[in-house]
Amino acid sequence: MDTIQSNKYNIYFENSLSELANFIEQGRYSRFFVLTDENTAVYCLPRLREKLGNPDNFDVIEINAGEESKDIDFCIGVWKMLIDFGADRQSLLINLGGGVISDLGGFAASTFKRGIDFVHVPTTLLSQVDASVGGKTGIDIDSIKNIIGTFTQPKAVFIDYEFLRTLPARQILSGTAEMLKHGLICDADYWNLLKESDLNNPTAELVYKSVAIKNRVVLEDPHEKNIRKSLNFGHTIGHAVETYSLINDEDSLSHGEAIAIGMICEAYLSYKKTGLSQAELTEITETLSNLYPRYELKTEYNDTLLEYMLKDKKNQNGKINCTLLSAIGQFNIDNICTNEELLEGLNYYASL
Amino acid sequence: MDTIQSNKYNIYFENSLSELANFIEQGRYSRFFVLTDENTAVYCLPRLREKLGNPDNFDVIEINAGEESKDIDFCIGVWKMLIDFGADRQSLLINLGGGVISDLGGFAASTFKRGIDFVHVPTTLLSQVDASVGGKTGIDIDSIKNIIGTFTQPKAVFIDYEFLRTLPARQILSGTAEMLKHGLICDADYWNLLKESDLNNPTAELVYKSVAIKNRVVLEDPHEKNIRKSLNFGHTIGHAVETYSLINDEDSLSHGEAIAIGMICEAYLSYKKTGLSQAELTEITETLSNLYPRYELKTEYNDTLLEYMLKDKKNQNGKINCTLLSAIGQFNIDNICTNEELLEGLNYYASL
Ligand SMILES: NC(=O)c1ccc[n+]([C@@H]2O[C@H](COP(=O)([O-])OP(=O)(O)OC[C@H]3O[C@@H](n4cnc5c(N)ncnc54)[C@H](O)[C@@H]3O)[C@@H](O)[C@H]2O)c1
Ligand SMILES: NC(=O)c1ccc[n+]([C@@H]2O[C@H](COP(=O)([O-])OP(=O)(O)OC[C@H]3O[C@@H](n4cnc5c(N)ncnc54)[C@H](O)[C@@H]3O)[C@@H](O)[C@H]2O)c1
Ligand SMILES: [Zn+2]
Ligand SMILES: [Zn+2]
Repeated sequence: MDTIQSNKYNIYFENSLSELANFIEQGRYSRFFVLTDENTAVYCLPRLREKLGNPDNFDVIEINAGEESKDIDFCIGVWKMLIDFGADRQSLLINLGGGVISDLGGFAASTFKRGIDFVHVPTTLLSQVDASVGGKTGIDIDSIKNIIGTFTQPKAVFIDYEFLRTLPARQILSGTAEMLKHGLICDADYWNLLKESDLNNPTAELVYKSVAIKNRVVLEDPHEKNIRKSLNFGHTIGHAVETYSLINDEDSLSHGEAIAIGMICEAYLSYKKTGLSQAELTEITETLSNLYPRYELKTEYNDTLLEYMLKDKKNQNGKINCTLLSAIGQFNIDNICTNEELLEGLNYYASL
Repeated sequence: MDTIQSNKYNIYFENSLSELANFIEQGRYSRFFVLTDENTAVYCLPRLREKLGNPDNFDVIEINAGEESKDIDFCIGVWKMLIDFGADRQSLLINLGGGVISDLGGFAASTFKRGIDFVHVPTTLLSQVDASVGGKTGIDIDSIKNIIGTFTQPKAVFIDYEFLRTLPARQILSGTAEMLKHGLICDADYWNLLKESDLNNPTAELVYKSVAIKNRVVLEDPHEKNIRKSLNFGHTIGHAVETYSLINDEDSLSHGEAIAIGMICEAYLSYKKTGLSQAELTEITETLSNLYPRYELKTEYNDTLLEYMLKDKKNQNGKINCTLLSAIGQFNIDNICTNEELLEGLNYYASL
């Protein structure tokens, strides 16, 4: 699996932690900080330390696990830790964790002293195939997802498949949703390959293929003016459902579980609006429904869900904008959807 | 006074508010937001509104006046107002005010939804000749100045000399300090011209000249790798004194007053370390002392001042880094100063 070239940085797969050791040795950094959460501190930090030869010049910043930490208050906490530890402009931040760590750490680093270098060591499937590639950083405010952030590229990404061994099954499936999305939006062969694979345990090759697809898309359109919007398939409705669940459910949906729901609803909108065939709609619905647990979408949630969709970054002029499919493997961007259409989409899922 | 071309944006001087009206008409913005403080809301907003033909599609976000507002809490307030007003990615933020408004507004805009457009309409002398040019945005945390920020260029800057008519005399002098700095670091003729001028009331031409100097410097080195560091003359010690005063004094020093103190101390260090002549040291000391009120720098402040200097963004490897002069009009960057030297500099000012 060759190193992938992204926007002025490399994504390493083979012996990637040794590559990180090289990167550190070659960089002229004054100080190193590792951002972890309570889980990656236990499951991933020892391996990282060992592979780096147990360095003693690393300060660790640990935050709570979970989306609640991807918030301005935790961000301020990270900034203050960097201040207290005496981080300067030549410091490097190593984001060791899932998408929460890479989004928050990327944002904190890109704004600390007007920007210090950071690299990602993604430890969830989701962050390996999605969050660590593309240069989006972000935090939430009042549970509005990624409302604050920057476009800032990491200096490198180090993907180590071994980290996935301790990842709970549910978190694996969360990442699988984005892999399926990659197939649906631009690679029907990859979608078919995924369907034939054990998606509770995707191989390193499948991970690699997804990173390659995501990278191809973001390289063509780094600032999301056009084709990068393809990656939003499932995310207009999915993000609203994710936010709702985050606020209201004790055991809230994972990102991928919410996106799977969003993809089913938006596949229905694709069938209604952009030419997805009935057979393809059924194929998508069945594949996703077999893989992900049912979530009860009550009609009394509708107003709140629409309100969240209205606050979505992707909107213009107060109109809700969706990426849909015209076929499996063929995306279709900038579809304005009315409230009625969106409710129909939600209802399609609810009545399955 | 011709329009100055900066880093992919223009700085307008003649009929600049009509130019803003044109800019707005030609842009494809969905919404407009004006960030003001309590003073610019009174003294500047009416003129802006009138020049724009009293538009009704402008939402105003007003914050308290003063450096205390350039803080993460106020920034969160601005973000939340933008959310509540329904700002989308096609919104424009117009920063109407001094350096506090342009630094805070620039940071808030550059991170809102991963970046929306903003322009500056600087209304203090300091922000006209300094803060609005160069693409630095920033906020303070725990009174550590500009510790968080981005490098993001405004889409345009509109400098209207008329705004200075309501500016208190003390605020004029705050801006004059930066103008004097421009002469000291790279233009001895300009320094001489300034010395012969009424610095309590600098002309539009002098303002223009300062903007041109600052622009030349930042264009050559947008990310402060080398010559832009020249602009830090007076700021290592000056920022520490400013922070100290902000926290401890009821009527705290203006930025320019603090920088004037810093320039005297650092001129002394220049005399000690980088070849500034005794005559030049005296000339700088006298010019600045005649213009700015004395500030009592007690020796018991020294530890705190050094501590602030140590937290300065410009440092590397825990060493305090100063920009000094080798002559009037000739800067000299990257001088590591020991604590003893810095204390000598402070003592030079204290014993004047
Ligand atoms: N920037 C982007 O382009 C982008 C793209 C997609 C998603 N995201 C963001 O990513 C976030 C979701 O990412 P996520 O699902 O990785 O969330 P996460 O970071 O919260 O990780 C999920 C859980 O797995 C735990 N974990 C991580 N690595 C582990 C390991 N190796 N072994 C055991 N446990 C481990 C974490 O502690 C956490 O409890 C969301 O905030 C989403 O908005 C960003
Ligand atoms: N980004 C940069 O490159 C840069 C450069 C220099 C300074 N700065 C920052 O700029 C800030 C200082 O700027 P400042 O001195 O303009 O401060 P400021 O914005 O606080 O303005 C000073 C005072 O003047 C008032 N005011 C503004 N315009 C007025 C007008 N036309 N009439 C009457 N009153 C008016 C303000 O309400 C305030 O009370 C500091 O935070 C400093 O760090 C930034
Ligand atoms: Zn996603
Ligand atoms: Zn200054």
